Amino acid sequence: MSIIECVPNISEGRRVEVVAAIIDAVRRISGARILDHSSDPSHNRTVITMAGGGPTLKAAVLALFEAAISSIDLRSHTGEHPRLGAVDVVPFVPIEGVTMHDCVALAKDTARTVAERFQLPVFLYEEASSNPLRKNLEDIRRGEFEGLSAKLATEGWTPDFGPASPHPTAGATVIGARMPLIAYNINLATDRIEVAKAIAAAVRFSSGGFRFVKAMGVSLTDRGIVQVSMNLTNYEKTPVHRVFETVKREAERYGVSVLESEIVGLVPSAALVATAQAALQLFAFRPEQILETKLREQLEQLEEVEEVEEVEKWKK
Amino acid sequence: MSIIECVPNISEGRRVEVVAAIIDAVRRISGARILDHSSDPSHNRTVITMAGGGPTLKAAVLALFEAAISSIDLRSHTGEHPRLGAVDVVPFVPIEGVTMHDCVALAKDTARTVAERFQLPVFLYEEASSNPLRKNLEDIRRGEFEGLSAKLATEGWTPDFGPASPHPTAGATVIGARMPLIAYNINLATDRIEVAKAIAAAVRFSSGGFRFVKAMGVSLTDRGIVQVSMNLTNYEKTPVHRVFETVKREAERYGVSVLESEIVGLVPSAALVATAQAALQLFAFRPEQILETKLREQLEQLEEVEEVEEVEKWKK
Repeated sequence: MSIIECVPNISEGRRVEVVAAIIDAVRRISGARILDHSSDPSHNRTVITMAGGGPTLKAAVLALFEAAISSIDLRSHTGEHPRLGAVDVVPFVPIEGVTMHDCVALAKDTARTVAERFQLPVFLYEEASSNPLRKNLEDIRRGEFEGLSAKLATEGWTPDFGPASPHPTAGATVIGARMPLIAYNINLATDRIEVAKAIAAAVRFSSGGFRFVKAMGVSLTDRGIVQVSMNLTNYEKTPVHRVFETVKREAERYGVSVLESEIVGLVPSAALVATAQAALQLFAFRPEQILETKLREQLEQLEEVEEVEEVEKWKK
Repeated sequence: MSIIECVPNISEGRRVEVVAAIIDAVRRISGARILDHSSDPSHNRTVITMAGGGPTLKAAVLALFEAAISSIDLRSHTGEHPRLGAVDVVPFVPIEGVTMHDCVALAKDTARTVAERFQLPVFLYEEASSNPLRKNLEDIRRGEFEGLSAKLATEGWTPDFGPASPHPTAGATVIGARMPLIAYNINLATDRIEVAKAIAAAVRFSSGGFRFVKAMGVSLTDRGIVQVSMNLTNYEKTPVHRVFETVKREAERYGVSVLESEIVGLVPSAALVATAQAALQLFAFRPEQILETKLREQLEQLEEVEEVEEVEKWKK
C-alpha cells in the first residue's frame, strides 16, 4: 500500500461553516481520508491533514481549491499568519511505499491542473522546485497577497504554472513536496542559556551547521534547565543521530551533559531505524527485514489473491 | 489490527502430498493466512508460519492437529531433528496490537482444547509455562517420542493437559508463547577465533552473560575475520543495544574493533525503536508517535466508520 500525506493550509480559520463546507467537498471525493483539521482564529487559517494514494489526493486537492476559491476572498482577509492565497500552501509528503520523486511528480501534475482549471498562478516549492531561489516557502510568500501583483511582475518571479497576474480574490498558491518534519529537542543539565544558544548556533543551517536543521536555545525555567529546540527538515540527509551526537559533543566543551532528548509529535519509522542502524553499526540492513512490514505485506498480498479468486468464482 | 504469528512444526518433511493435505486443511479455515512453509527431508519436518487473530489461529491449529494426527505415525518416523509428536511444537508470538499475556492465554486455551479433542498429552512451554523446569523446549523434548511413555510416568512430568500416557501414533505436543527471536551477529576486525569465543562466553546466558542471549564464536574464513554469532530470545528484557555495547567493550580488552553488526532475517520494529531510544537518550517516547503507525490506525478507524455507515444506509 502506498501512503502519501497531504497538508493543505487554507486562509480561513474563523467562519466555521465555510471551513466545514470545504472539508465536506473533500470528503465527497471517494477514497479521500481526512485525518485531522485544525483552525486557528488569530491566524485565520486552517490546516487540513489528509492521506491516500496519488490520484485520490489530486482529486481531493482539486475539490478543495474549488470550494475554497468560491468562499474565500483574500481582499478582506486578515490574520497573523502570512499568506499568499485562498489555498495558501499544499505540500505532499511521502510516507510509505512511495518515493520523494513520486511526490514531486504528483505536486507538479496537481499544480498544472490547478493553474489551468482556476486561472491561478502556482509556485512550486521545496523538493518540487528546481530553482534554488524559490525553494523556501518564506521566500515565495514574502510580500503576501497584498504585494503579489508587484512580485509577479518582478524578474525571476514568473509563476511555474498559470497566469503572471494574481487571481482577483484567491491570489496565488504554493504547491510542492517535502519530507516529514521532526520536532526534536535536547535537554541539557545546566541552566546556562548561553550554552543552549551556542549549541543551537553550531548545529543550525543558518549559522553554519547542518543543512536540514533549524535550532534555537530556550530556557525551561520550571525545571531549571535549558533546551536546544530543533526542527529537522530532512532526516534522510541530516539524520537524527548525527545531530544528537554533535549536540552532545558540543555540550562537552562547556562541561555540560545531555539529560535526555525528546521527539515532539510524530516521527517517521525510517528515522528511528536509521538511528538504530548507526548505533549498532548495522550492515546491509533492508527495511523488508522489519517483521511487521514483512507480515503486513504478505497479509495484503494474500488478501488480494483471495479477492481475485472470489471474483473468478463469481464469473463461473 | 492485532497480529499474532504462529509457527507449528510438524513431524513430516518427506511425503509432499501429506504436507500439502495438512496445509489445505488449515487453509479451509476462514481467515487463516499461511505466510510460509518449508519442509526439510533430512529433518523429516515441516515448519509452517501463519498469522492472524487469536480465534482464527486457534481454529487453524485445531484443523492442523486433526489433519496431522490422521496422517502421521510417529512409530515409523525417522529424521535428524528431535521430536515428541506428530505436531511437535506450536509457539504463538505477539507481533502487533497484542501482548505476551494474550498469547499465553491463547496457548493455554488452545492446549486445553487440543488435549480434550485428540486425547493428546500437552506440555506448555516458554512464557506459557509456570514451571521453571519445563520452560525450555529442549528439556521437554528430551527422550523424544521413544522415551515419552517413561517420561510421562516420571515425577514432575505429568502433562499440563490431557492424559498421562502417550497418544499411540501422535505422541505428545508442546504448545506455548514466546517472543520473536532475533538472529544477530557482530563481526570483529581480527582473525583471532579465541577473541570471538571469549566474547561469546561473556555475553551468553549459559556461561554467566545476559539472560536472553545464546552465543558462539565462529570464523568467517573467506573474509579473514571472526564473528560473535547470537540468538536474542527476548529483546524486551535483553535489548539489542546493550548486547552490542557489551560486545564492543569486551572487544576493547583485546585491542579489537567492531567491524559491523548484522541482523539475519527478520527483526521486530520495537527492537529497533528501543535501540534508537537508547542511542538518543529519548525520553517519554510512545509507539503512537511513529508516523506510519498513527496514520495506519487513523486510516483503519476511518474505514471502519465507513463500513458502518454503508451498512446503515442499506438498512434504511
